[in-house]
Amino acid sequence: MRVVGMLSGTSADAIDVALVEIHGQGSRLRPRLENFCMIPFPAAVRREILRVANADQQSSLSVAELSQLNFLLGELFGRAVIQACRRFRVSLDAVGLIGSHGQTVYHQGKPSRFCGRSVASTLQLGEPSLIAERTGIPVVADFRPRDMAAGGQGAPLVPYVDYLLYRHPRHGRVALNLGGIANVTVIPAGAKPEEVYAFDTGPGNMIIDGAIRRLTRERHRFDRNGTLAARGQPDESLLARCLRHPYFRRPPPKSAGREQFGELFLSEFLRAARQRKTADVVRTATELTVRSIAGAFERFVLPRVRIAEVIVSGGGLRNSFLMQRLQESLPGLRFLSADAFAIPAKAKEAFAFAVLAYQTWREIPATLPRATGARHPVVLGKIIPAR
Amino acid sequence: MRVVGMLSGTSADAIDVALVEIHGQGSRLRPRLENFCMIPFPAAVRREILRVANADQQSSLSVAELSQLNFLLGELFGRAVIQACRRFRVSLDAVGLIGSHGQTVYHQGKPSRFCGRSVASTLQLGEPSLIAERTGIPVVADFRPRDMAAGGQGAPLVPYVDYLLYRHPRHGRVALNLGGIANVTVIPAGAKPEEVYAFDTGPGNMIIDGAIRRLTRERHRFDRNGTLAARGQPDESLLARCLRHPYFRRPPPKSAGREQFGELFLSEFLRAARQRKTADVVRTATELTVRSIAGAFERFVLPRVRIAEVIVSGGGLRNSFLMQRLQESLPGLRFLSADAFAIPAKAKEAFAFAVLAYQTWREIPATLPRATGARHPVVLGKIIPAR
Repeated sequence: MRVVGMLSGTSADAIDVALVEIHGQGSRLRPRLENFCMIPFPAAVRREILRVANADQQSSLSVAELSQLNFLLGELFGRAVIQACRRFRVSLDAVGLIGSHGQTVYHQGKPSRFCGRSVASTLQLGEPSLIAERTGIPVVADFRPRDMAAGGQGAPLVPYVDYLLYRHPRHGRVALNLGGIANVTVIPAGAKPEEVYAFDTGPGNMIIDGAIRRLTRERHRFDRNGTLAARGQPDESLLARCLRHPYFRRPPPKSAGREQFGELFLSEFLRAARQRKTADVVRTATELTVRSIAGAFERFVLPRVRIAEVIVSGGGLRNSFLMQRLQESLPGLRFLSADAFAIPAKAKEAFAFAVLAYQTWREIPATLPRATGARHPVVLGKIIPAR
Repeated sequence: MRVVGMLSGTSADAIDVALVEIHGQGSRLRPRLENFCMIPFPAAVRREILRVANADQQSSLSVAELSQLNFLLGELFGRAVIQACRRFRVSLDAVGLIGSHGQTVYHQGKPSRFCGRSVASTLQLGEPSLIAERTGIPVVADFRPRDMAAGGQGAPLVPYVDYLLYRHPRHGRVALNLGGIANVTVIPAGAKPEEVYAFDTGPGNMIIDGAIRRLTRERHRFDRNGTLAARGQPDESLLARCLRHPYFRRPPPKSAGREQFGELFLSEFLRAARQRKTADVVRTATELTVRSIAGAFERFVLPRVRIAEVIVSGGGLRNSFLMQRLQESLPGLRFLSADAFAIPAKAKEAFAFAVLAYQTWREIPATLPRATGARHPVVLGKIIPAR
């Protein structure tokens, strides 16, 4: 079966679309990435997404805006499938299923007080009924809520796919994804699913990109190859302060997002660094990523599992200075690109949601309870019929 | 198969739960109401729902609140099924499917401008993954978006069930539901599905209840038996002004909600009537419901279709003064209670969503394109697997 996997990340730059060919069943699944593309959001839509995702008690949001954005994104996701398949030269009829993660605008993995009760929740936008209607293809969407219903944090979900792809009979491996948030999947040599665990280490590119954007007044969106960071010096006292964030010390399972490392964190970070040169600020943000990841390995990975290789995916892989600093900080490990495993780093997440959708379609649970903290594995998501 | 149907209406008072036994298939469906109950919302939750539903650019809403409310309502809906089945003395194992409409907090049936585009949308809260997880029963939820994706207004949906229940080979019938909003389903004698049409006539109990609440400072929630209205005199000039609302003149298909007749309308109504006695205000609100319904019959029903009977359901049925005024305003028609058709008026909508969920489960389209304005019938909703 051919399955399209699709999502837009926390940075809300573009819709990632992967076309995946899937053979086999259950844990014997053999998925193969056939093609991948990114379809940028119109600037006005991107601004609206970020505005909604950052809306709090201070900034005003109407329920109308949220509802309208949900449908607008559904329409754009639907068109993205059509556009991508045209680009891939694959007829829509040849696609059997779509897995749509949607655009996260809120994620509260751990319960907090609400209306006098303890409530955790997550909210992904991009109405899947529109995707099914526009394409005539069944859709599996909204992957995170079911895991949270079972007591999990609804994240991370990709580790299940990491496990399918990277498990090795003799080498312990860690899959490290450097998206806006950085996360690791720890796969002991010869592991069974219940031995795999995973968690978010903290910021990936989120603070680096945010700093670049603010300091260049949106002229630049990321630190290409890390050239800016490479020229700067880290502000060690600010770094130490950032690394005291309680998130880093909390043992897994745990997940992070804009709630911890969003606009508020970024604003405080930039305020504290306002006397510094741009290169120093970006270097400090880069070091925060590096040291929080290294710290996570030292606290929560290496004391428990023998690891030989780290397989890196996500946008951060293109930041060669970041990669160099990671290798220097964890010299005993071999850092490899996920590209070498036939899944180009940037296609990883879209690929994963195709695989997860397929498992739901076959009614197979596709979560790792040790990764999300759920009481048991669950069949993920909601199914929207084709017609 | 036994199916639970569930919803909470625009007034956000309680969760309606119906247990329905269904035999047969497709348009030969034979559904039978087995039991029904209403499970009130805690007061704090009700306040929060109304606050979110009325949040606009002025009142502040955070994306966190909306997301948390969605999960909290999912939890309460899940518990409501368990509680209802206990009350019905039916084991959860004996229930094959749940149809959950959710709590509407926004409905924009006709496209409006958003982000430079034309967008229609609807938003129902009550995360169905929680319902499936708590009960172990598969759920069909989120019925409205697919019809909107097909160009419809996503409402009204109950007419399809009215058609299944009330079609008659020799009598033309109208099903009139008096909820917060009033709606009619017009079923010509011996009609085929494509000949049935339906639309919202405007306010049902929404303005009456709202006026009572505000004027009694929440001590009363509705005009029991219409005794207050019966003692008052209508303010004819205010009535005339209200009836000039462009909604009433717009030809069907059309749907109404808080956007047209919510807090804003109510506030203006009460401001214009502030010199009047309470009984006069409530009478005027009651007349607005009566005359807008009668006007809709005269404009959009009686010139097109020969009608013998009006079958009334919804909370307004208990307002005997309202019922008397309706009968006086449309003397040529016979007004009957839906109770006489084995579906008690108050159970009607919950019953309907059980039937609609069942059709989705069987992959059968269950919409009337003339009712919603969609380009074609659609299979409604999203399916959440049991485990």
